[in-house]
Order: sequence, then C-alpha cells, then structure tokens
Amino acid sequence: MSTLSTVIETIKPLDKKTMAQAQARQDRLTKPQGSLGRLEELSVQLAGIQGRPLPQIKHKAIITMAGDHGVVAEKVGNWPQEVTAQMVCNFLGGGAAINVIARQSGVRLVVVDMGVATPLASHPDLVCRKVAPGSANMCAGPAMTREQSIQALETGIDIVNGEVARGLDIVGVGDMGIGNTTSSSAICAVITGEPVAQVTGRGTGLSDDQLARKVAVVERALAVNKPDPKDPLDVLTKVGGFEIAGLAGVMLGAAANRIPVVLDGFITGAAALVAVTLCPRLRDYLIASHVSAEAGHPLMLKHLGLKPLLNLGMRLGEGTGAALGIFLAETSARILAEMATFAEAGVSEKDEKGK
Amino acid sequence: MSTLSTVIETIKPLDKKTMAQAQARQDRLTKPQGSLGRLEELSVQLAGIQGRPLPQIKHKAIITMAGDHGVVAEKVGNWPQEVTAQMVCNFLGGGAAINVIARQSGVRLVVVDMGVATPLASHPDLVCRKVAPGSANMCAGPAMTREQSIQALETGIDIVNGEVARGLDIVGVGDMGIGNTTSSSAICAVITGEPVAQVTGRGTGLSDDQLARKVAVVERALAVNKPDPKDPLDVLTKVGGFEIAGLAGVMLGAAANRIPVVLDGFITGAAALVAVTLCPRLRDYLIASHVSAEAGHPLMLKHLGLKPLLNLGMRLGEGTGAALGIFLAETSARILAEMATFAEAGVSEKDEKGK
Repeated sequence: MSTLSTVIETIKPLDKKTMAQAQARQDRLTKPQGSLGRLEELSVQLAGIQGRPLPQIKHKAIITMAGDHGVVAEKVGNWPQEVTAQMVCNFLGGGAAINVIARQSGVRLVVVDMGVATPLASHPDLVCRKVAPGSANMCAGPAMTREQSIQALETGIDIVNGEVARGLDIVGVGDMGIGNTTSSSAICAVITGEPVAQVTGRGTGLSDDQLARKVAVVERALAVNKPDPKDPLDVLTKVGGFEIAGLAGVMLGAAANRIPVVLDGFITGAAALVAVTLCPRLRDYLIASHVSAEAGHPLMLKHLGLKPLLNLGMRLGEGTGAALGIFLAETSARILAEMATFAEAGVSEKDEKGK
Repeated sequence: MSTLSTVIETIKPLDKKTMAQAQARQDRLTKPQGSLGRLEELSVQLAGIQGRPLPQIKHKAIITMAGDHGVVAEKVGNWPQEVTAQMVCNFLGGGAAINVIARQSGVRLVVVDMGVATPLASHPDLVCRKVAPGSANMCAGPAMTREQSIQALETGIDIVNGEVARGLDIVGVGDMGIGNTTSSSAICAVITGEPVAQVTGRGTGLSDDQLARKVAVVERALAVNKPDPKDPLDVLTKVGGFEIAGLAGVMLGAAANRIPVVLDGFITGAAALVAVTLCPRLRDYLIASHVSAEAGHPLMLKHLGLKPLLNLGMRLGEGTGAALGIFLAETSARILAEMATFAEAGVSEKDEKGK
C-alpha cells in the first residue's frame, strides 16, 4: 500500500467525546456562555482534532513550500519568475512578512523547495525536496506527471512527519510561487465547478486587461488538459504545481497525526480542495485563518465549508494569514485551559429564574 | 484651566509626515503593495499617532475599569450585581478571559475600581479610585452628578498618565459592570440619534421579553433625564457610569500623550462616543479591535467612522477584543520595522511594463 493511501486511511473522525468535554468546560468558565464566539468554537474543534479535552498548542510550525510554474510563459503575471527563488532566500534571511509574523506568533518556519526553477544555494534552514525545476506549462499539456504529483504529495507527508518528530501541536501552511494563483484558479474552477472568471483574481496586482488574459489562459489549460473533477490526483497533476501538491500532502499527513492544519489564502485553499477531495474527513482538521482579498477565495472556503476567522484584506500568501490564525488557535486553547470556572473563582452564575 | 480641558487642547492631529514616511517604506517592503491589507493601514496610523516613521509597540497595557449601575434595580439583566466585584477579584486572581488573552499578547493588565458597589478588599494589583459605590438609577434621575462625571474622567486621565510613566506605547481599554450595556445603549441612542431599539442588545444573554423590558428602561431613562446630545458631559452624567467616564478619560489622556487607544466592544464604544464628542480629534487615535455581537455596536463604530479589525462574534468586554487588537497592532508595527525592502533583500520588483 502506498504512503498516500495509508495516510488517507489513517485519518479518523474528530473525537466527539473530547469535544463534548471541552464544550462542557467552556460553559463553566467565568463568562456568559458563548460570549467568546469563534474562540470558543475553535477550542472545541482543537479538542476534537487532538483528542484531548484540553488541547495543547505549544509547538507551532508554518510549513511554507515554494515551486515554479511553467504557465508563466503565458505572461499571466507581472513579476519575473526569479522572484520565487529570491523570496525563498528572503525567507531564509528572515526579512519576509512571514518571518516577522512567525516571530511575533512564536511559530517556527520551515521553508521547503518543492520545485523552484532557479537553482538555490544550499542553506542550513532550507529543506531541499525539489521534484523538478518548475512545472511544465499547463497550456501545452499536463503541469506534472502523475508520478511527480504523487511524489510531491508524499514529500509533504514526509515533511510533516519530520516536524511531528521535532514536536508539533499545530501546523500552518504557506506558499511561494510566481504563477501559482493561475494554477490555483484552475484547480478551483474544476473542483468547485464555478466558472473560471469567478475564481480568477488579480494575484499580485493585475490590470483589467491582464486579468482577462489570465482567465483565457486558465480556460485554455482546462480545454487542453480536461482534468477529471472526480479524480483529484488528475486535477493536481494536470493544472497543479509542486508546492500545491506538497501542501496537500502536509495537510493529509498532519491530520493523520491528529494535528490541526491552519490554512492561509488562495493557494493553500487550492491545495485543500485537492486534499479534501482525496479524503473528505480531512475537512474537520482544517482551520480557515482568513479570507483573502483574492477573488475566488470566498467561493473556495464555501465549497470547503469553512468559515474564516479573519478578514484583513490580506493577499500575500507565504503563510502570513496562517500564522495569525495559529495565534488565535493558541489563544483559544489557553482560554479553555487557563480560565477559572464559576466555582473556582467564586463568581455567582446567571440567574435563570428570570428566563 | 481644568485637567480635562487642558488635555483636550493638548490632543493634536496625527503627524502626516511620519505617516507618509511609513507608507513609503511599506511600499518598498518585499511584498506586492497593499498585500497586507489592514495591517499596512494600521502601521501607518500608528506612525501618525506616535509621530515616528517606525512606530514602536513594546510597552502594552489594558486598562480595565469596573463600576456598578443603579439601573440594575430595574431588572435589566440576569446576573446579580455582586458579579461586578466577584469578577474584579477574578481579574486580580488571573482567572478571567482578559487575563489569559493579556498573557498571550504580552500585555499588562491594570484593574481599576471606578465605582463598584460591593466593597473590595485591598489588593496590590487593584487600583482603587472609587468615585462612589455604584451610580444612581438613571430611571429615577441622573446616574451621576456632573462633578462625579468630571472626577471620573480626570481619574482616567490620571491613570493613563501613571501608565505612561511606567512605559506605554499602546493602550487597550476594557470594562466590567453589571448593567453597563443598558447605560451604553442610552449613551449610544442620544449621541448617534438612532432609535433605542436599534442600539439595545441582549448583553450577557437576554430573552425576547427581557430585551423588550430593557428597551423600555432605556427609553424611560432618556425621558426622565433628557440628556443634551450636544453636551457630551451632560449625556455621560445623566445616563453614563463611573467606569464609562473613566474609560473616556483614559482615551483622552492617551491621545494627549500620542498613544494609540485600542477599543474593545460596546461599553468602550459608548465611552468613545462621549470622548470623541468632547474632542473630535481623538477619533484618529482610536483603533477598533473588533465588532461585537452586541446589537448596536456596528452602528456605534459607523458613527465613530471606525472599521473593526476582527469579527469573531465576541461579546464579553473586559478588554478581551482590545488585547487581540493590540497583538495585531504590534504585528503591523513589527512588519513595518523588520521586513526587508526589495533593495535590501535583492528581490526583483514588479515589472511595470506589462501594465
């Protein structure tokens, strides 16, 4: 049996018993019931994922995967392809947004080269797992081979397993890859069934003309490849990319270890669409950190059945939203664990007679 | 000249020059311009408030003020009045939601008794500045005298000045007071001109019948007192409360020291309505951390012209939303200060030719 299918079989439903215990404790804490809103729900979800009435969020990581996309030959964006590699170096140097937010949230950052086109010098903090130097142009045929797609997924599983060995209570996912909103729009259109124009956005900042060209490119990629919406591996192979496949693998591997997965924006959302189609149970392990300003992200979250925690007009990727989401998850777990109950604090409870 | 009027005169417009410098730096950082959304705006606002191109958020405090409300005699809620004092003890013991979120955000918590009805034992961490043991029932006449109202405002100024002396870069505000959503609804109705029913909510969890009674109580208080919407001190005196007045003072005192003020929910919003009516320039020093689930809060924020950062369905008060907002403010300031520019990181910039 392959690693991928074993992992998919390992993913179990959330633990209803620990969720009920967490909810019961929330209801005894010194506050009106439900008055912490989404933070209460989040703590209960974490309890169900980890299988602990008091979920623990101490060891926190963001796994940010980078890959290049052959579709940039179609001029879908306005940043040169070498920016992918340059930004990986920026991550390693600590100067990118994700570095700052990760430091602020106390999250370790794991940077993985899944398929960057430009050769990267080795660096002690760079995890080099390059499947190939960039995907092929999906307008001329499949972006990857099926073997590459599976290799990238299993690499994601392997990487998260390594992080579990270092200590991991929650994982956020992030991406870097010039051209990857185009690939993500293609995945989103196929899996959600929405029209391409509805799920294609301005990425890093396109004009109206450029946006129209990008929509046409996605439509062409779908016409050329005819990905099968019922076969998520086929979709991933034909219009995905190495970092997207790797991130889908991270999600599956994390859930198999009962570790909550905090999504970022549009690209990690596309990876989640693939991963949840491969394993519908994964959905309950996912936390939507934010809704991105990228058109299509709200539809993606709706398809996944996830409600975002934040709406800050962000559209950067890298795991920046996920790192903020991890902060909220840790806050929610600490509230559940550290707040006093009415009995402990000697606080009178609500008078129910008046109800 | 009184402390209050001196402070109001001291509040200056934001520093446009440092805001322009902050914005120019944001635009050179290694990310598509604007891709961090609200976090970018926030950093620029902080620069303008502090008068520094790189705002610093290191010393952080939440000032949570407690007071009791005579209007509880009208049975507007379903929690006994002694809960105000019991929750103050819970704050001092570290077991309330605000304690946990403050610890998680690295924020010190300052707990002030502005007018709790129940006597509180002295405690090294309790700032005792009780103006009176609870306000009077606003359905029978003014909640406070004009002198008490000014005393409470000036106490807030004094307390924030003390915190500035200890080191303060940002301050969040929080409240505790059984009955204080009723008082806040009255303030909101008068100052925004909205109908009482539109700005009166379920507080800590009222039934439909109880909500109707609460609306009637607020209407009665306004009919009895006829507060003058053009005289914010009159509104505060007649339908406010000690902690609300104190919080308005904290806001004014902070702004006079060029310190950003992070609002919490409905009660701190009511205090902000009073304070901004006293000094319209204060508005630019305010950051709306979240929109509360309490009906009326969105209208309040609209009147103040503030866009909330978070919408997590919270409705607890205490400063819980403000503490999360401080985390976001600190994150935004660190992004501005710590991210590399394109030139520093050797990252290619967007190709503008394609535009």
